[in-house]
Amino acid sequence: MKFASYKINNRITYGSIIEKGNSIFLTDIGKDHGFDLCHWIQTDRLEKLEDIARNTGIAYTEQEIEYVPPILSGEKIACIGVNYTNRNAEYKDNSELPQYPSLFLRYLDSFTGHQQNLVRPPESHQLDYEGEIVIVIGKPGRRIPENRALEHIAGLTLMNEGTIRDWVRHAKFNVTQGKNFEKSGAIGPWFVTATEITDYTNLTIETRVNGEVRQQDTTANLMFSFAYIISYLSTFMTLKPGDMISTGTPNGAGARFSPPIYLAPGDIVTVSVPEIGILKNGVEDEKSM
Amino acid sequence: MKFASYKINNRITYGSIIEKGNSIFLTDIGKDHGFDLCHWIQTDRLEKLEDIARNTGIAYTEQEIEYVPPILSGEKIACIGVNYTNRNAEYKDNSELPQYPSLFLRYLDSFTGHQQNLVRPPESHQLDYEGEIVIVIGKPGRRIPENRALEHIAGLTLMNEGTIRDWVRHAKFNVTQGKNFEKSGAIGPWFVTATEITDYTNLTIETRVNGEVRQQDTTANLMFSFAYIISYLSTFMTLKPGDMISTGTPNGAGARFSPPIYLAPGDIVTVSVPEIGILKNGVEDEKSM
Repeated sequence: MKFASYKINNRITYGSIIEKGNSIFLTDIGKDHGFDLCHWIQTDRLEKLEDIARNTGIAYTEQEIEYVPPILSGEKIACIGVNYTNRNAEYKDNSELPQYPSLFLRYLDSFTGHQQNLVRPPESHQLDYEGEIVIVIGKPGRRIPENRALEHIAGLTLMNEGTIRDWVRHAKFNVTQGKNFEKSGAIGPWFVTATEITDYTNLTIETRVNGEVRQQDTTANLMFSFAYIISYLSTFMTLKPGDMISTGTPNGAGARFSPPIYLAPGDIVTVSVPEIGILKNGVEDEKSM
Repeated sequence: MKFASYKINNRITYGSIIEKGNSIFLTDIGKDHGFDLCHWIQTDRLEKLEDIARNTGIAYTEQEIEYVPPILSGEKIACIGVNYTNRNAEYKDNSELPQYPSLFLRYLDSFTGHQQNLVRPPESHQLDYEGEIVIVIGKPGRRIPENRALEHIAGLTLMNEGTIRDWVRHAKFNVTQGKNFEKSGAIGPWFVTATEITDYTNLTIETRVNGEVRQQDTTANLMFSFAYIISYLSTFMTLKPGDMISTGTPNGAGARFSPPIYLAPGDIVTVSVPEIGILKNGVEDEKSM
């Protein structure tokens, strides 16, 4: 099942997604049941939430609401840096395949929701896209063995892991700055429960800018599988329900073109995985305050 | 004034610190007023909290309680990587002084409190200390001008920015893993309100291991001042009350000795700044689960 978080009349709520032909409708579960979507993951009651969703009628059309990132109260957003095999080659530094994943952290404020604009700040014109699949953790754990790791997935969502390229190189050893500009990325369109996914090792991801395919790959080409990533991260930190792990982006980000092609106001970026949906975002210049 | 967060009879609470000679006593403000310490910062009522503290009697001796990190519900813990001028030279890579600070993020779970043991995990024996001064943000802001930045400080605390050295090098571009092992670092001993600090540009910090001075420097030698750091970070993210920014460590971490001297069970590490206090931690091997 699919669940979105959204804003309506200045209220943040959540509900299930109902697709009818090309139209998308939403229920409003938050109105009657309180909490937020993440709460049902954190209390291990996604099945109960699905029961409620089955008995809840449509409240809004997609046009009436404003999407926000589906998971609003998780603790961590961990991002894997270079993961698709082709991407490592793309760096052309003749390095061998890495032994361990590259990892950095982002805060929720650096993301907006589906159908909202990514924000290009006045400090840089190098806003770039990176389409990624996001694991949402369900069952908590530390030192999770790889062969049990997939049981810890509550579901998936998508990320445009939007990046300010020149600020990524501000620091010697870290990319933190260029990965944390407010609303430079997006998470959504919604959260899909793990029961909808039959195979994590063959999901096809595609990023388009203004309709043109820029990134296309499959999780079959990951250097570090979803199971490995969960196991590896849990070596040093306890993974908790609602934690998100973004699993890396295929080659073809704008910075990789010669000359680079960065995002500009008016562009439309989509990140899609058939089993999840299409995360769609425009781009705008930050409004002066 | 000084405020600590602590555990007593399996309850987490907070109170002011009362020093009498060499003895330390604590009030229990949480018992009567609820919330946590961070709440008073987030609601901009530190002065009210100080009023309450003045009218609250001693509840416990330091020996009766278990310290936890003073700020438990902030959103961010941002750490500056290389900041004291000597430290850049210490890397011996002939690089010029950096133009911007290096920055990485840690989660609260990677810290323990004052007088608790740092935890050396079974995966590595390279647990290292890094003494640092931590800014706690009071007033929120984005793109804070440097000349107004100090007004955004609610107070200070200390950090042992404990690091698993070999895991810092797991990734190509990031130090995340080696900086986020559970309870590999410590924050404390307590939070000191900004009103106690007259000059942020001349604070003396010292780290000792088993009494031996290993790190000693002053914030007069910072490449990036507290004011600059606050201004710089707020360029890309909104700083919020309760956010912590650790301001970098002087040279002399264990990894810099030849051969390196890492921490081992039984060691005692102290990080001290006269205006704040002494953060003291032992070291233990992680208990097998």
